Amino acid sequence: MSRYVPSLELVPRAARGETAAIGRLISRAEAGADDVRGAMAEIYRRAGRAHIIGLTGVPGSGKSTMVCALTTRLRAAGRRVGIVAVDPSSPYSGGSILGDRIRMADHVLDDGVYIRSMATHGAVGGLARAALDAVDVLDVAGFDTIILETVGVGQDEVEIARASHTTIVVSAPGLGDEVQAIKAGMLEIADIHVVSKCDRSDANRTLMDLKHMLTSAVAAGHAPLWRVPVLGVSAYANEGFDELLAAVQAHVDQIVHGEGGVQRRREIARFRLQKTAEDLLMRRFIAATAPQLERWTDPLVERTSDPYSEAAGMISAALQPPRV
Amino acid sequence: MSRYVPSLELVPRAARGETAAIGRLISRAEAGADDVRGAMAEIYRRAGRAHIIGLTGVPGSGKSTMVCALTTRLRAAGRRVGIVAVDPSSPYSGGSILGDRIRMADHVLDDGVYIRSMATHGAVGGLARAALDAVDVLDVAGFDTIILETVGVGQDEVEIARASHTTIVVSAPGLGDEVQAIKAGMLEIADIHVVSKCDRSDANRTLMDLKHMLTSAVAAGHAPLWRVPVLGVSAYANEGFDELLAAVQAHVDQIVHGEGGVQRRREIARFRLQKTAEDLLMRRFIAATAPQLERWTDPLVERTSDPYSEAAGMISAALQPPRV
Repeated sequence: MSRYVPSLELVPRAARGETAAIGRLISRAEAGADDVRGAMAEIYRRAGRAHIIGLTGVPGSGKSTMVCALTTRLRAAGRRVGIVAVDPSSPYSGGSILGDRIRMADHVLDDGVYIRSMATHGAVGGLARAALDAVDVLDVAGFDTIILETVGVGQDEVEIARASHTTIVVSAPGLGDEVQAIKAGMLEIADIHVVSKCDRSDANRTLMDLKHMLTSAVAAGHAPLWRVPVLGVSAYANEGFDELLAAVQAHVDQIVHGEGGVQRRREIARFRLQKTAEDLLMRRFIAATAPQLERWTDPLVERTSDPYSEAAGMISAALQPPRV
Repeated sequence: MSRYVPSLELVPRAARGETAAIGRLISRAEAGADDVRGAMAEIYRRAGRAHIIGLTGVPGSGKSTMVCALTTRLRAAGRRVGIVAVDPSSPYSGGSILGDRIRMADHVLDDGVYIRSMATHGAVGGLARAALDAVDVLDVAGFDTIILETVGVGQDEVEIARASHTTIVVSAPGLGDEVQAIKAGMLEIADIHVVSKCDRSDANRTLMDLKHMLTSAVAAGHAPLWRVPVLGVSAYANEGFDELLAAVQAHVDQIVHGEGGVQRRREIARFRLQKTAEDLLMRRFIAATAPQLERWTDPLVERTSDPYSEAAGMISAALQPPRV
């Protein structure tokens, strides 16, 4: 148990679906372990087969219930399902369930489902990089569909949901104006809009509002290849989920396997490149400057210098750029 | 109107409290305008007089109402109040009010109040840098208390609230388990906890839960200089806000003006330095690599290479580091 297995040795084991190897690789990617880069490079080259569903929504919109319902139906269709949750409020953690309020427990004992929560706190940047590394590990491990759940607040978090083949944005009635306002930034990233809790009487207004906003967006000049559907579901009444799965399948058939999919995969690759470069650069920069941080902080405390001057000095010292 | 005034010329005008100069400086800092760095350096050296209150909470917790109530009382005490909202759901925008549901309108016509929303979407990083630059501008412009409001979801956003002398975390009853779970990451950053909507019957449970969590945290080994209060307020009944202001004042007297304040100012300076350096470095990196981005993206789309290898190549090309 305690022997350190080099990350590269874990790759073929994860590819055979060994749960322990999958978990270790993801944990090392999350921590940014030095020896994981070679392994993740190998993983990336082997990946690319799975269908990735991004799922985002404001807190309280019912994302986890949606993930659970989708998983049930994908399993019934014989698909193996991986779940990566970049969501501090998600009720699952490292394969186990926090709280018993959802029926995810059924899936935990199922070999065809792998659930992984990513830490969103305390990471030195690199959340997007780590989450997408985790998706690749599950892809290589043979999961057919991977659901990437992120909380829909905060730019980094919303961006991650966009790094998927099919992005679902979840809304809910009755969350109040303040919560709904955040949605503005999520309107344009959705391939499919879902309104949860449609057993509630006020759900209709939420459905209408969304349809109205989408119509305005289209009228404003977009001529989309894909008409973004607005679907209602109810976990309480167990309604609407088959239609949601049908919409996902329609998006796969019409867009993911077509020209739109080629373009989307390029966007994901570009995002991936940028986030990985950002993370590597920042780690290197922080490692280079950490031992001397107080040297640049002191004059700021005294206000005898300013953040721009000290930051410029810090960058020069860390990177020693070429003379120009 | 249309002449471009160099940013450095705007500094003395902002320092005299000219609203237009304040607004322009903040907008330029937000956009990362080239000539703003010298001006912001000058601003930083002049700043450091104001008391900065960080205020954060999950969406729907009633942050804006809290900001409004605090502002009313601080004005009554003769203090000039600046507000910087890093919150996509905040109802004010560039000094104007979106929606009429709060009584902030009273303050918009008051010279002693300045309200500024920061864009949280589409910024090339640098949100924390820009928000703290805005705080400094208001500090130099003579505002005595500056309230920095951020939405309490997403690591970057929560971190910003911590870059203040006194951090208030707002909770509310009835937001559901999913929303409350996010609070875990905010528990430890609070100098003062406030529970809003305490006219509701379920508010007592929220108060008790918070007190219980704090007691556990203290029992776990912290021996704090400051005993974090948990206060209840009700905007509906207009109750509890005087006690909140008294708690803020107690924190200023006992901590901000004492040893704790020295330490906190150093932490803020360090955070400031790191965020500014991160932003400058990333801007430089993005500018250097953007023209050739497709060159590194192509092999990722083909999966003939991987993000780690291409990111490393990209960093080398952009920074041309010294041979080691």
